[in-house]
Amino acid sequence: MAVGQFELPEFNKIAGLRVGTASAGIKKPGQQDLVIFELADTSTTAGVFTLNAFCAAPVQVARENIKEVKPRYLVINTGNANAGTGSKGLADAKQTCASLAELTQVNPQAVLPFSTGVIGEPLPMDRLLAGLPNALDALDESGWAAAASGILTTDTQPKGATTIFTINGEKVAISGIAKGSGMIKPNMATMLGFIATDASIAQPLLKQLLKEASELSFNRITVDGDTSTNDACMLIATGKSAEVAVEDTAAVAAFREALVSLMQELAWSIVRDGEGATKFVTIQVEEALTRSEALEAAFTVAHSPLVKTALYASDANWGRILAAIGRTPGLENLQVEGVTIFLGDVLLVEEGGRAASYTEEAGAAVMQQEEITLRIKLGRGQAEETVWTCDFSHDYVSINADYRS
Amino acid sequence: MAVGQFELPEFNKIAGLRVGTASAGIKKPGQQDLVIFELADTSTTAGVFTLNAFCAAPVQVARENIKEVKPRYLVINTGNANAGTGSKGLADAKQTCASLAELTQVNPQAVLPFSTGVIGEPLPMDRLLAGLPNALDALDESGWAAAASGILTTDTQPKGATTIFTINGEKVAISGIAKGSGMIKPNMATMLGFIATDASIAQPLLKQLLKEASELSFNRITVDGDTSTNDACMLIATGKSAEVAVEDTAAVAAFREALVSLMQELAWSIVRDGEGATKFVTIQVEEALTRSEALEAAFTVAHSPLVKTALYASDANWGRILAAIGRTPGLENLQVEGVTIFLGDVLLVEEGGRAASYTEEAGAAVMQQEEITLRIKLGRGQAEETVWTCDFSHDYVSINADYRS
Repeated sequence: MAVGQFELPEFNKIAGLRVGTASAGIKKPGQQDLVIFELADTSTTAGVFTLNAFCAAPVQVARENIKEVKPRYLVINTGNANAGTGSKGLADAKQTCASLAELTQVNPQAVLPFSTGVIGEPLPMDRLLAGLPNALDALDESGWAAAASGILTTDTQPKGATTIFTINGEKVAISGIAKGSGMIKPNMATMLGFIATDASIAQPLLKQLLKEASELSFNRITVDGDTSTNDACMLIATGKSAEVAVEDTAAVAAFREALVSLMQELAWSIVRDGEGATKFVTIQVEEALTRSEALEAAFTVAHSPLVKTALYASDANWGRILAAIGRTPGLENLQVEGVTIFLGDVLLVEEGGRAASYTEEAGAAVMQQEEITLRIKLGRGQAEETVWTCDFSHDYVSINADYRS
Repeated sequence: MAVGQFELPEFNKIAGLRVGTASAGIKKPGQQDLVIFELADTSTTAGVFTLNAFCAAPVQVARENIKEVKPRYLVINTGNANAGTGSKGLADAKQTCASLAELTQVNPQAVLPFSTGVIGEPLPMDRLLAGLPNALDALDESGWAAAASGILTTDTQPKGATTIFTINGEKVAISGIAKGSGMIKPNMATMLGFIATDASIAQPLLKQLLKEASELSFNRITVDGDTSTNDACMLIATGKSAEVAVEDTAAVAAFREALVSLMQELAWSIVRDGEGATKFVTIQVEEALTRSEALEAAFTVAHSPLVKTALYASDANWGRILAAIGRTPGLENLQVEGVTIFLGDVLLVEEGGRAASYTEEAGAAVMQQEEITLRIKLGRGQAEETVWTCDFSHDYVSINADYRS
């Protein structure tokens, strides 16, 4: 189940970048589960990684390698997260890099490994390594769509976004894919996101742009509040088209705008495909004292099982929304009378209670929609934040009670 | 559904305290929904209330009145929480006190009101006030069992506990009832708890004892992480048996021990009757740097939808447990290698990965049980904390998607 159907776009090719996908038998036999990105030697690469203390072995290796050497290959397997696997897991992640490096004649540290899937099982190294030549054979500038499917786990639909625009008269393309459906409350990045542009961008600026765009996209979504051990998002600039330099503020602004918009599209598609999701919900908190207060309140509402089950039931249960706001950590001295809530365009709560003008019919009409916006005004300042989430359905329980067994 | 069957005890009567229950037609017709406690004028009373910023009208009135006058009556209605009801709700709560005070010839501020049920609907005052004489007529020292049923909402079973012990050679009794099933992550007290003893205890000491015992019972349980707007727990000492004075440290210790044990029994029965619960889960976090760090980690695991659905599925999914620990707010510089987890008596995780000795069969044997203990050793200090929770089932979604509609 997913909120709406979303089709993969016709990806813009990124000069200097090829993608190959193969079936290595790590997931069920015959499924695509191994993806390789090949980066031209002109490329710069930036990454953001999970803040979960239990970060997986590949995250540790990728984070280390990217500091040492300019990345030339990314290798991603699904079906197994190589997390909670101790020193064996670290050795396996390094062996994956070494094997791919040998096949491609690069420095082993120029390979970044990524894994997603079941936690706590050892990687099936024989099958993974045997699959590498097939994925290399498949490398192609038009490999994006196959890769979008090749990185999925419990996702029901592949997720991609692409855009083309001009900087200083030169065409610049950005393409990206992402995966993620459960254990989604990224704290740095989504489960996995791979985005590339043909622009030329120095690494420090690339990293800063990725961080900023992550804050406005992947770090503002939540499905179930559980932060993955394997979250990672990579941004590659192959250096084959226009230069985006710090000094050229107009170019930076144009690139930032395109990147944020593309990453938001990817992030939203993760929420739409959230485990068991039947609603796509935007939660805007306004009139907060600080942005962090607004964000905390938005996430408290977004994580409330009672709010999420009411959304699933299309029940405009504003009492549960108020109760969630009221228990927001750090929201001191909130004046109940100052709180206003809009459900879509319908005024639901004013002065801390049900709005006089509100009717169940008007609320139900909004609740029946697949896309719902909750606008919460705290009445105590000017700061605002927005997060995106989905509802909590029987299917969420089914999916997560059955997974692994 | 509830974890196990629990029968109400044969309540010890509390000299100086009578309880009356009636049907006022606030819930479905014919159901008991109105309860009055009558306190001898020798009584001292202490209360702890929700910290939710949106506390309900009756909580505001009760919190105010108890500061001004020694309570003589508590009046509780179910079926309607009188929360999110603005100035009308406040006036209704005060009117309830005034009407009962007129019938009983006491100061209106000597009446404390409590409400639980649907949020955001006005109290049906005509029916509530008409029911007061019937509840007064029913006042009896043996009224506890009827009251235990009279305060329920979505609970499937009434909850009570009682004990008798001696202090300085004199018999002392404590009896208590509680209600609560969903929106349970008390922050001060359970949804509603009423506990009384015939001991003689000055108010400051009574308040301190209630706070301490709440911290070790109601403030250590969670069903869904949602803190109610109506939480309140009252402790009454009627002064008809032994004196418990600050100077008599042995008496204070004996009373504290009995009270903590009784309140834990009530708190556990709320978890066992948690909405949709099929498992009763004890989460012990040990070897933390500080108690607050241990508590934060325990609640992070207890609130994780992925851990809760795995418990529902009887799946010893230790990866999800590690992932939850790893995202505990404020748990800085956790060394994964130092973490050990026991599932019951079975060593599940050692050095941050699956224990070499662990078998799926051993884990499954523990998981099949209705009562499960997770013991998590962080390997970085001496502090520990315990919380109690339940699993997350299809029925939780059904109950909360259907409630109100």
